[in-house]
Amino acid sequence: MTILLLAGITAFARQASEERLQVVSPEIHNDNRVTFRLWAPQATCVQLTGDCLPARQVQTSYGLEEQAGVVDMVKNAEGVWEYTTPRPLEPELYSYYFLIDGARITDPRNVHTIRDVAVVASVFIIGGGRADLYRVNDVPHGTVSRLWYDSPALGMRRRLTVYTPAGYEEGGGRYPVFYLLHGTGGDEEAWITLGRATQIMDNLIAQGKAEPMIVVMTNGNTVVEAAPGESSAGFIIPTSDQPGMRDGSFEMSFPDVVNFIDTHYRTLADKRHRALAGLSMGGLHTKNISREYPDLFDYAGIFSPGIPPSPKVDSPIYEQVEEKLAIQFEKRPACYWIAIGKTDKRYRENKDYCQMLDEKGYPYTYMETEGGHTWRNWRIHLSAFAPLLFK
Amino acid sequence: MTILLLAGITAFARQASEERLQVVSPEIHNDNRVTFRLWAPQATCVQLTGDCLPARQVQTSYGLEEQAGVVDMVKNAEGVWEYTTPRPLEPELYSYYFLIDGARITDPRNVHTIRDVAVVASVFIIGGGRADLYRVNDVPHGTVSRLWYDSPALGMRRRLTVYTPAGYEEGGGRYPVFYLLHGTGGDEEAWITLGRATQIMDNLIAQGKAEPMIVVMTNGNTVVEAAPGESSAGFIIPTSDQPGMRDGSFEMSFPDVVNFIDTHYRTLADKRHRALAGLSMGGLHTKNISREYPDLFDYAGIFSPGIPPSPKVDSPIYEQVEEKLAIQFEKRPACYWIAIGKTDKRYRENKDYCQMLDEKGYPYTYMETEGGHTWRNWRIHLSAFAPLLFK
Repeated sequence: MTILLLAGITAFARQASEERLQVVSPEIHNDNRVTFRLWAPQATCVQLTGDCLPARQVQTSYGLEEQAGVVDMVKNAEGVWEYTTPRPLEPELYSYYFLIDGARITDPRNVHTIRDVAVVASVFIIGGGRADLYRVNDVPHGTVSRLWYDSPALGMRRRLTVYTPAGYEEGGGRYPVFYLLHGTGGDEEAWITLGRATQIMDNLIAQGKAEPMIVVMTNGNTVVEAAPGESSAGFIIPTSDQPGMRDGSFEMSFPDVVNFIDTHYRTLADKRHRALAGLSMGGLHTKNISREYPDLFDYAGIFSPGIPPSPKVDSPIYEQVEEKLAIQFEKRPACYWIAIGKTDKRYRENKDYCQMLDEKGYPYTYMETEGGHTWRNWRIHLSAFAPLLFK
Repeated sequence: MTILLLAGITAFARQASEERLQVVSPEIHNDNRVTFRLWAPQATCVQLTGDCLPARQVQTSYGLEEQAGVVDMVKNAEGVWEYTTPRPLEPELYSYYFLIDGARITDPRNVHTIRDVAVVASVFIIGGGRADLYRVNDVPHGTVSRLWYDSPALGMRRRLTVYTPAGYEEGGGRYPVFYLLHGTGGDEEAWITLGRATQIMDNLIAQGKAEPMIVVMTNGNTVVEAAPGESSAGFIIPTSDQPGMRDGSFEMSFPDVVNFIDTHYRTLADKRHRALAGLSMGGLHTKNISREYPDLFDYAGIFSPGIPPSPKVDSPIYEQVEEKLAIQFEKRPACYWIAIGKTDKRYRENKDYCQMLDEKGYPYTYMETEGGHTWRNWRIHLSAFAPLLFK
């Protein structure tokens, strides 16, 4: 009892001390340098890592790989470890972690976190430039709904995220629809959280750069109903190893999504008013769906596309691919758009795909951005692609 | 360059090691004992704290206070610290942290976290009993929307969370509306995350225990538009010190919310089909709003009510309180419902309030639960109150 009580008093003294210090982290200075802080008086080593630091080339067993930088933080007399970036950060949404005696943790003082598949990171935004599209600004805001649709093809109820633009609820008009797909291991939350899709669409529409449109974000893994924690499987830990994303079943069942949206929202329900885009595995899904159903979508956006499964899966999606692609382009899509980062791990395969399109004479628009296979690029790709739609 | 490269290799070896270990945390055993694990080979002390441990009485400068228990974790040969609860845990939604060399962190292996005002905790659910209401079960699911309403009284666009029950989108019928308010420092996310309102309503409705209803969750702090990170103020760090929750402005402006919902949803737009409830400060808001506007709500649910600000603020809400309360009860509300935990810090003030109602002869229903001023109780209160509505 005495021991418990003492432990309690110690713990209370500790907490009171932490509260008294009022540690602020991250602190974004007026010149956009950023200070990170962690109260950890007993730790022997605290480091910072994240995409707010210069990347480094690391020799691994797979070859030379680009990894997030790591810097040491310095402890002050009150037990607060600190690091300030030597230079202002460019406008961007950044993510970071602390390494406290080697263990990777989020910043306990920053309530803003984003899950990327199986890892949660602390995040902050440096405004200005393109990053102003990622911020909540004082503009009319659309509505974001999480709802469930019935997929007869998959025999499941599944979860969707739907953005309706500001004014949708007020008016009686009909709207075009943009279907937006995530990558391997992601889910129907990915574009809203890491992708900042709500903010990008609100801002582009408010600036008159994009048409008001409905945006539908699906879950591309057909072995689950919903994102981790949102299905009856409970608070599961997500993995990137999800067979239901690569077997063609998602692509084959996609008309169920379109039918649901066309019967539950005031849509312009024709090909001319439907767009489809996706990142990585979602880029592959976009190729496959737009090719399989050439009368559904007039716009296809392929961001850092993933490559088809090998060996080929047994799905109609991978049968008569060349013939279906020929039909798709015979029908002259309004826009077939491909974007990739210059150091993306799929750069070469994507170049091969573009070369094949060139050889066939299939027209497409190509955008190359800096950097690799990252959300930084997919936010840029979305910001560039959405303004092209439904014009 | 050499140093950087070495650091890179070390970091990689570390990460590879952590990946190889495949640390699972929390691990819920078949008998509902739970094992927590943290890979931190260089830490000298790792502890677990949270409401999954027995609470302890701690002597503080404010007197004897109930605080979450703290236990030491034990390191194995591979650098993984571990603790297993000696007994099975009762069905509940639990939250916890690790203390790594004194610094409080979330569990890096558990992507499921919930923010409570300014602190993010790791969470898990032990199913069974009442906690089955908090789980996503294989039942029809309602839709949860985040949208913005215009408040002429406050001169702001403000964010709302709205739950519409399964079937709302399919049918053409009209629904009753339940307005559900958060406590001090909370926001329009609180009932959805910590309160598990979506799951509780989905499950109660699926079991036939609650009527299908729309649930509207507001932001009760009129100096902000929205939850942290969701307004143009950016990724701010929330605080409990929010003057806009206690000045009567939220209560006075509440008809703006009701008007918005009645014009944007298929509601049964009369007193008989409107309920209002809230926790802590939201319990005070519920008293105030239902008294100020006695023709709006037929049901008032007051969970662990907060006490009026002192000195009295200059708001019509705090003028002629007795007279307004008399009018409210003259109109015979269908249900005036008060619930509180036996060790709630507001227990005595609430008893005084009930005694006043008794003396006046104003009828109400009273529920007492175990424990204190916690979300555990507010989930129980919601689960008990919602089935009483609109019958």
